[in-house]
Amino acid sequence: MKVTLTTLAVALALAGGPAMAAQWQALPDTAPAPADNPTTAEKVELGKMLYFDPRVSSTGTVSCFSCHNVMEGGDDHRPTSVGVHGQLGGRNAPTVWNSAFHSAQFWDGRAATLEDQAKGPVTNPVEMGMSDLDAAVSRLTRIKGYKPFFDAAFGPGDNINADNMAKAIAAYERTQITPDSPYDRYVKGDRQALSAQQVRGMETFDRIGCTSCHSGANFDGPALPAGQPFLMKFPTFPGSSYDAEYKLTEDPGRYASTGNDADRHMWRVPTLRNLTYTAPYFHNGSVKSLPEAVKVMAKTQLNKDLGDADTADIVAFLEGLTGKFPDQTMPHLPPTPGDLLE
Amino acid sequence: MKVTLTTLAVALALAGGPAMAAQWQALPDTAPAPADNPTTAEKVELGKMLYFDPRVSSTGTVSCFSCHNVMEGGDDHRPTSVGVHGQLGGRNAPTVWNSAFHSAQFWDGRAATLEDQAKGPVTNPVEMGMSDLDAAVSRLTRIKGYKPFFDAAFGPGDNINADNMAKAIAAYERTQITPDSPYDRYVKGDRQALSAQQVRGMETFDRIGCTSCHSGANFDGPALPAGQPFLMKFPTFPGSSYDAEYKLTEDPGRYASTGNDADRHMWRVPTLRNLTYTAPYFHNGSVKSLPEAVKVMAKTQLNKDLGDADTADIVAFLEGLTGKFPDQTMPHLPPTPGDLLE
Repeated sequence: MKVTLTTLAVALALAGGPAMAAQWQALPDTAPAPADNPTTAEKVELGKMLYFDPRVSSTGTVSCFSCHNVMEGGDDHRPTSVGVHGQLGGRNAPTVWNSAFHSAQFWDGRAATLEDQAKGPVTNPVEMGMSDLDAAVSRLTRIKGYKPFFDAAFGPGDNINADNMAKAIAAYERTQITPDSPYDRYVKGDRQALSAQQVRGMETFDRIGCTSCHSGANFDGPALPAGQPFLMKFPTFPGSSYDAEYKLTEDPGRYASTGNDADRHMWRVPTLRNLTYTAPYFHNGSVKSLPEAVKVMAKTQLNKDLGDADTADIVAFLEGLTGKFPDQTMPHLPPTPGDLLE
Repeated sequence: MKVTLTTLAVALALAGGPAMAAQWQALPDTAPAPADNPTTAEKVELGKMLYFDPRVSSTGTVSCFSCHNVMEGGDDHRPTSVGVHGQLGGRNAPTVWNSAFHSAQFWDGRAATLEDQAKGPVTNPVEMGMSDLDAAVSRLTRIKGYKPFFDAAFGPGDNINADNMAKAIAAYERTQITPDSPYDRYVKGDRQALSAQQVRGMETFDRIGCTSCHSGANFDGPALPAGQPFLMKFPTFPGSSYDAEYKLTEDPGRYASTGNDADRHMWRVPTLRNLTYTAPYFHNGSVKSLPEAVKVMAKTQLNKDLGDADTADIVAFLEGLTGKFPDQTMPHLPPTPGDLLE
């Protein structure tokens, strides 16, 4: 029997249960780009080089890739990251996977776009530790082999600057998306893609209220106007033993960057995709396992004491959110002048 | 006119100058492997994963790739490397490119094979800092996703151990060779591949005696029986101002690992391929530019005060030794248990 797309669709419609509620959305195959930074192959190629280049850090040892490992989970499997001179950062590295879909960047949403975000770690003294963005640009200018790639990405001219560096990195990051998870296949009509337990977990996830924050295709909340991050308070229901055990209120969250009292303990809602790759969890990397993370969230956000069975169902569902990582070639970086790091 | 390989060879023989002396050898397209570790695609794939995996370091931040960057020059563009907790190593990271052809590994030749070498940095306290190789094996065992790759590379069974880890990494490193440099094309008969200045530099390089150590296809000396590194004393002619300027005798060389007085200031002869990518130079990374490196070597090894013209010619020749880096896909590393780093 010849199976066409049409007969397949009809067969699925006949075989399937009730239609999916509109809230369950598959991840798009491509990420949107801002009007002033359309994604091009040349920009992505340059951005990939820059993303992997540790020479933009003071010691020449830390790149975007160091803490956002696109060969594993887009993060660094540590509670908090290590920057130049072995210094510890204060927050867990968020995954770069699907960050293109976030309403805002960083744990506290203080950057409106990936372009803004890309500049931050370069001059953070405990991350890449450059004295300022000019120093980073000077490094890139002195690595002569970069010039043709900037020309290809941005047109010939005086084009090696911090804005273009950030634009190229952001363009590359927009390619780091992970579609085709079991959940995505399920939503698109393949009702065998999730197990019965996973479907039960999906329903529980919705019923108890996880979806009030973790909504949308990326499970990170609705898209708001530019610069307005979708925030959650953490914990919303303080007072459980988890607060002390996992130091949930030690970090004041968005307040640290805005100074507004209303932002105390407010956080951008993180994605739930690829959680099987991004342990340990939470802004401080304090929770090591996914079942524990689910229980802590249910209690501190929804004031629900989740039992083991419901927890296992939700974990099974969340495991179905792990998608296909892009197959990538390694960039070839241009050679280094011997006195670059001085 | 139809050009066949035969007519091309005849044409080249007629057009060419004198035949190449046997000492000038092109880099082989593949590297030899030891009898007990034949190179297979499965081993190379596993080895690439391990090479890029920082989780085999105490902090989860340092991998083979950190100091031997196969996206740039196979090294790390620093005078000496940075390991866990920001600690500085004592010697310049040698390039991994073409290390498969070395008579022995490490700057002082203390490892006979790539397999032996691969285990060293894992437990070096200022490099990857694991307490012992068992601890590294324990990490790999706890990252469940590695098991199928060890099975594919070594056959099913109890196969996650330090020897197999090292064998896989060595198999991957044997693929990291850079044939097809202008010099290689020249030696194979394309007399246009090097410029007149480069050919002059090649002749000067030979005439003044560089080839007495830097011989063979990899310019790192002849192959000796296993475990016998081809060594040079550095400096052979001490007493020049360079000794103090570049601290040439501060490190006792091979003596540090053998304790034999005869090994004081003895070093394995390093390759001269891809020098345009591997600044800064020498065992301590003290010399920043290639012209300066050539002058220092001529004086301290051959007792010759090389003029600017001869130096420029030799540099031009050495620049012709930069080959084609392999195009590589990024490995996909298996996910991390949240408590791996404890």
